[in-house]
Amino acid sequence: MKFGGTSMAGIERIRGVADRVRAEVAAGHEVAVVVSAMAGETDRLVGFCREASPLADRAEYDVVVASGEQVTAGLLAIALQAGGTRARSWLGWQLAVATTDAHASARIEDITTDAMLADLAAGRVAVVPGFQGVGPDGRVTTLGRGGSDTSAVALAAALRADRCDIYTDVDGVYTTDPRIVPRARKLARITYEEMLELASVGAKVLQTRSVELAMKEKVRVQVLSSFTAIGNDPTPGTLVVDEDEIVEQELIAGVAYNRNEAKLTVAGVPDKPGVVAAIFAALAAANVNVDMIVQNIAYVAGTTDVTFTVPRTELALSEDVLAKAQGTIGFEHVTSDAAVAKISVVGVGMRSHAGVAVTMFKALGDRGINIQAITTSEIKISVLIAEEYTELAVRVLHTAYGLDAAA
Amino acid sequence: MKFGGTSMAGIERIRGVADRVRAEVAAGHEVAVVVSAMAGETDRLVGFCREASPLADRAEYDVVVASGEQVTAGLLAIALQAGGTRARSWLGWQLAVATTDAHASARIEDITTDAMLADLAAGRVAVVPGFQGVGPDGRVTTLGRGGSDTSAVALAAALRADRCDIYTDVDGVYTTDPRIVPRARKLARITYEEMLELASVGAKVLQTRSVELAMKEKVRVQVLSSFTAIGNDPTPGTLVVDEDEIVEQELIAGVAYNRNEAKLTVAGVPDKPGVVAAIFAALAAANVNVDMIVQNIAYVAGTTDVTFTVPRTELALSEDVLAKAQGTIGFEHVTSDAAVAKISVVGVGMRSHAGVAVTMFKALGDRGINIQAITTSEIKISVLIAEEYTELAVRVLHTAYGLDAAA
Repeated sequence: MKFGGTSMAGIERIRGVADRVRAEVAAGHEVAVVVSAMAGETDRLVGFCREASPLADRAEYDVVVASGEQVTAGLLAIALQAGGTRARSWLGWQLAVATTDAHASARIEDITTDAMLADLAAGRVAVVPGFQGVGPDGRVTTLGRGGSDTSAVALAAALRADRCDIYTDVDGVYTTDPRIVPRARKLARITYEEMLELASVGAKVLQTRSVELAMKEKVRVQVLSSFTAIGNDPTPGTLVVDEDEIVEQELIAGVAYNRNEAKLTVAGVPDKPGVVAAIFAALAAANVNVDMIVQNIAYVAGTTDVTFTVPRTELALSEDVLAKAQGTIGFEHVTSDAAVAKISVVGVGMRSHAGVAVTMFKALGDRGINIQAITTSEIKISVLIAEEYTELAVRVLHTAYGLDAAA
Repeated sequence: MKFGGTSMAGIERIRGVADRVRAEVAAGHEVAVVVSAMAGETDRLVGFCREASPLADRAEYDVVVASGEQVTAGLLAIALQAGGTRARSWLGWQLAVATTDAHASARIEDITTDAMLADLAAGRVAVVPGFQGVGPDGRVTTLGRGGSDTSAVALAAALRADRCDIYTDVDGVYTTDPRIVPRARKLARITYEEMLELASVGAKVLQTRSVELAMKEKVRVQVLSSFTAIGNDPTPGTLVVDEDEIVEQELIAGVAYNRNEAKLTVAGVPDKPGVVAAIFAALAAANVNVDMIVQNIAYVAGTTDVTFTVPRTELALSEDVLAKAQGTIGFEHVTSDAAVAKISVVGVGMRSHAGVAVTMFKALGDRGINIQAITTSEIKISVLIAEEYTELAVRVLHTAYGLDAAA
């Protein structure tokens, strides 16, 4: 079981978490719990480090910020014991959770679980601070913001757990944003691949790294709500599992949208080898994260137009980088548009079904929504449209793929 | 060097501590620094534990509260580096600071310093969170409130440090409370024994346990102010040292007072073996800490009166305990007085000088101050007087023993 910062914000909520853990123990399970720091605490600690030095030594930064999860791990163990459930905390260095030495962004390499397994078998709940580990030199490491999901999946893999239940603010993964489509449905199951594609286009439920790890280690992850009334069984959430576990595979798992990108078009690029690469090399050197890339044929012979998207926050920087590179690269001009949205349909079913893209293009076209760019992956089709059509496009596609819940 | 919670309260002050440490490094010293948690932080963490359970598991309590010093140790290392001083933190389990398994009140048994000594020799400052260690089972322990002074002295002993500088809110140990006697003098040196007697009667500058450890390990401790202007050398504080180091031994080191006690007299106690013991056994069973004990001869033959002091906060409890034991023990009645003060003069010099007590009794008698009880140790004489005479008695004795600073 893994509980995030909102669930750990204050003793009253920690007591609620203890009740939820107790219910699993009562059901006969051996339980290990991974906890985040209290909501806001990691920000407070990071703030201290930045104030002490904007370039704080990452090894010492880790010493400071890892303390947040240490506190909640101890408190949850206390709350469990207060309710009569035997429990103990296991800090990162005690287990140990061995990581790389990349302080502040370490990767878990191995978790030693012998002592913990014996303790679990003896009937004690194990409480583990997420986000932290110990590096090869015996110093504290952290996994980077949001790393507790990854800690939970890694521990579940090391323990060969039947399941990794990740309690969050939402009660599962939906076919799309219910705020836009009231008839969005909660998915009972979703594949790792679909989860990754949905996360990367904005449906942020689990940390991407944790899903990648779950896929690699074949850990069955359940996303469910921490706010289900205690005493009742929690409402089942969404199981994130291997494709094999999904018998009735739907064509499309969900529709996602992303309004945080901006479109840039570099026009009149000399149509010669290496020129397009020079554009993206310049952007990469400035650490701009380019997403969709489409190369069109230009109206003027011997030149081409390149369209791509960047995070909206990096639009000004990107324009600046391109302006400086114009002399060297020799393109004609740059146009940009921040008022765009990326709409994606995701589903492993599209691998074996033709016509998925056609359905999308037709549904959008019927509503007069112009497609500015298209990219596809094996299990995803994304289109770029004018931002004002975002909600309409999501609703239209949700209906077109038969995702609407029964009225 | 050891810095308390007030010195670590916020990044601005931590930067000041870093400057002070840097000055010692610039003077050519190898420096290890022991730090407390930010002022108020330990209370916050203890509050969480109590809220989670009034009977919180002490092992988990330690996991929670030890985090406060972990944070400041990391932050001081960052602040030192930001100013160009090489530094790293060493957590209790990293050193390791091996303690007993008495969670929340552990004693330090051994500190492994090989790695730290090598690091110090290589020119890095060592920053160590006070108050914490690791038990025989590899779990986090803490030394009890105020334990960071003890951590500092223990580390100084393990490193065979030339000196252990403890930075506090005061700039040294005074002959008495300067708020009562403006002409009180700061002592340049004081013996461990005197420091212990002064601490036990109310002049709380160092934690008693740390002074006992310094005495046992012959660690030279300096008490000095954390508030001396940075850039200047800190004003020398008071050196707490072995008697051998004090050439010009003064007769009396200081005058202390304690207004936190209450007097109880059990009258008409049967003058038979074991009866007095029964009184104190009953109080001990209720965890009452009895201090001064005086047995008088009673007016009624065959009985005796016993007078003693208890902490004022335990007066009601003590009266309750005695009332319940009256039937068994068979004394006549109990009288009590909370409006008392204990005045003590302390000095190793009195071992070899007669007449020290006479000076005290005469000085008090001359001012009409009645002595209600007297106890003596080898280096201390304490008297119990009416509380209203406290300041007068302290001033009179300070003058009588020639302690007043030149005008």
